Amino acid sequence: MYDIKRPWEELLDLLKTNNSKEIKAYLNALKSEEIVRSMSRISNEDQRLLLSLLSPEDAADLMEDIPSAQAVSIIESMDVGDAAAIFNEMESDDQADLLTELDPEDAEAIINTMELDEAEDVKKLIKYDPDCAGGLMITEFLTFEESSTIGEVVKNLRDNSEEYKGYNVQYIYVVSRRKFIGVLQMKDLLLSKLSTTLSSIVITNAHTVADTDPLEELIGFFDKYDFYGVPVLNEKKQMVGIVLRKHILEAENERASIDMLSTQGIVGGEELRTMPTLLRSKRRLSWLSINILLNIVAASVIAFYQDTLSAVIALAVFLPIISDMSGCSGNQAVAVSMRELSLGVVNPFDVLRVLFKELSIGLLNGMALGILIGFAAFLWKGNIYLGLVVGGSLMINTIIAVSLGGTIPLILKRFGIDPALASGPILTTITDMLGFALVLSMASMAMDKL
Amino acid sequence: MYDIKRPWEELLDLLKTNNSKEIKAYLNALKSEEIVRSMSRISNEDQRLLLSLLSPEDAADLMEDIPSAQAVSIIESMDVGDAAAIFNEMESDDQADLLTELDPEDAEAIINTMELDEAEDVKKLIKYDPDCAGGLMITEFLTFEESSTIGEVVKNLRDNSEEYKGYNVQYIYVVSRRKFIGVLQMKDLLLSKLSTTLSSIVITNAHTVADTDPLEELIGFFDKYDFYGVPVLNEKKQMVGIVLRKHILEAENERASIDMLSTQGIVGGEELRTMPTLLRSKRRLSWLSINILLNIVAASVIAFYQDTLSAVIALAVFLPIISDMSGCSGNQAVAVSMRELSLGVVNPFDVLRVLFKELSIGLLNGMALGILIGFAAFLWKGNIYLGLVVGGSLMINTIIAVSLGGTIPLILKRFGIDPALASGPILTTITDMLGFALVLSMASMAMDKL
Repeated sequence: MYDIKRPWEELLDLLKTNNSKEIKAYLNALKSEEIVRSMSRISNEDQRLLLSLLSPEDAADLMEDIPSAQAVSIIESMDVGDAAAIFNEMESDDQADLLTELDPEDAEAIINTMELDEAEDVKKLIKYDPDCAGGLMITEFLTFEESSTIGEVVKNLRDNSEEYKGYNVQYIYVVSRRKFIGVLQMKDLLLSKLSTTLSSIVITNAHTVADTDPLEELIGFFDKYDFYGVPVLNEKKQMVGIVLRKHILEAENERASIDMLSTQGIVGGEELRTMPTLLRSKRRLSWLSINILLNIVAASVIAFYQDTLSAVIALAVFLPIISDMSGCSGNQAVAVSMRELSLGVVNPFDVLRVLFKELSIGLLNGMALGILIGFAAFLWKGNIYLGLVVGGSLMINTIIAVSLGGTIPLILKRFGIDPALASGPILTTITDMLGFALVLSMASMAMDKL
Repeated sequence: MYDIKRPWEELLDLLKTNNSKEIKAYLNALKSEEIVRSMSRISNEDQRLLLSLLSPEDAADLMEDIPSAQAVSIIESMDVGDAAAIFNEMESDDQADLLTELDPEDAEAIINTMELDEAEDVKKLIKYDPDCAGGLMITEFLTFEESSTIGEVVKNLRDNSEEYKGYNVQYIYVVSRRKFIGVLQMKDLLLSKLSTTLSSIVITNAHTVADTDPLEELIGFFDKYDFYGVPVLNEKKQMVGIVLRKHILEAENERASIDMLSTQGIVGGEELRTMPTLLRSKRRLSWLSINILLNIVAASVIAFYQDTLSAVIALAVFLPIISDMSGCSGNQAVAVSMRELSLGVVNPFDVLRVLFKELSIGLLNGMALGILIGFAAFLWKGNIYLGLVVGGSLMINTIIAVSLGGTIPLILKRFGIDPALASGPILTTITDMLGFALVLSMASMAMDKL
């Protein structure tokens, strides 16, 4: 099927030649997803060899390209000196992100081996919660005193153009003895005379955020304002960094992925198949083992009605259907609530409103599904009462499942519990118990007709 | 509980005063999610009144803030002239996005009423697939002929600063008779003499994308290169727009949300609770009704083994547990595959590799869960054979579920079927059937011991 070599095979061949120039050219030509895939296919030893052949700058670029879980495992297998050399070349927020994910001892060793000024910066950054402005900002920005003239700024930019290469020089920030004053666009510099002082043209009503502002607020900020980035001030109103829109969007993306994984029972963050099997198994099992206990609790309802079930064994066919369908209907409502929460269209106090909205959907869909399954039961056994019991149960249980599914995420959020992780298991346990109890108790009552 | 007025109550009060200045000030002070929430709480009539009190610019800002489904329903209830006035003030990509979501007749009427040059631009944009570079780009960019001098550019920028306000003036693009030549940063202009011609300093090896490039490729592009935006060229190598990183990240976010909703059975794009109940019910039901048929097929396996079940009624307790737990284990693997597909760590041809990786997890977790449930069965009935049948079935079925869960998304993707929508139902139907068959056939064989 494959006549041509796959990227990682090509890469392994190049590694054998030790030709770092060709390796670099080859990596540059690869698409980023091919790099990510190739890195996950070659051995840990080959990963180290590859990084040692690249310059620290190129190695840093590579590390920023691949998923952080992958980067962490590579770094932990590296020599401290080599790792520190690569960290020196990374953007400050990537440094901090990776360092906080490393084993604390490894992280400290690397920081102690990094260049002094880089180490200083990153030490401040890793103290911040990674999901607040301080943890999301970069520290590469340009400030000038308000008394400077445009001529001085232009000269400074010209003289340090090499050093400023990695900086975001779309804006310059104006300060007065470290205190933030305002912002200037490059365009503003271009359109004024060289002798103008910054203080006379600086935009002083610039928007800023506090280093402690949480991600939600930053998402809201960039939803509202169309900026490339925003200055971050500490409690003394000194500028400590800039938060870039792209980093907030990336963090939002990251959070949505973790949420998606949580909904399906992948806990403890991202799982990649390059991670150790035992770790992956353990993490998945931690969620499954709680779920199986909840399942046993729910199924014990069936044990309670054993005699009814023995008498009308046909009911056993419908128990898994009612359990599964109620779960599906409820999870649809959960998904809509999760989405509306993340859009900000509902907030955790809108429980009643959501309940009311979901009740009508539950009624419509409960009726449709109930009639369908009731009719199927009637066709199969020719007993109208069996159809009524099964169909009626599914109808009532759908209404309950949809109402619960819509409201549970809001209630969990209100009590500070992660709705992505907990909504599903709570919902299905309740609806399973209710569903089983409905069918079997209604059947008990209509026993002589079944 | 609430002593203070909620934002939409405040807004409704302000609407009664007809004071557009105060309304604007109030909206500016609100957080974007409060605006979104408030808009979804007030009647369609009040929404129209609100927009009529705002200037078209402010109304356009508001429309860009709220979810598109909400914006569409507001626009469709508006006067064509009012709607066109608002569209004139939107960014080109937002214009195109909303117009393609409108009823085609409404869209045409609005385009015909818009300003001529805006209408021209948007007519070109809506011809593109919304998920390719042409559909994602904005058309607000600045080009200059390569023969121009920096002095001429600076004069042009100064003279038109009002008009260029909405433009992304971080870069200027250099063309030669409409053909794209290269790019210049504002900084480059600042650091050169006014008499320099653009052709002598333009960066000619600038990266560009084609207007037909799909979203996946653009995501890969911005993963690899740290640009604010990239010029979009048509087949004649003329520059037709710029794709901004933020729009790609937003599109990626949007796609992830739609995927999350699909996994849980919300089809046809986003569902908001402000949409008509009948539409929401119909969309959810379209997925549920397929699912209930699949459920009936799976449960028919139970009907086939009715006699076994009558003889050992205790088994009925375990059928829903095996069905649910296999589904959970399989869906964990589905979630990891979906994530790895979106990261590009696996591609649809890695089926064997994923299968192998999941088999070991399936073995470990299958054993753990099997022992747990087998032990529970043994404790309950004091029959070791019941434990072996139930535990063995869950173990085998978990291994199968995990292997299938990991590979189904890849296989579906390979055949062009949306894995977010179809993986779950296919997985659970297969594992339900197998799980029921395993328990009941093993029980049949061990009947005299149970």
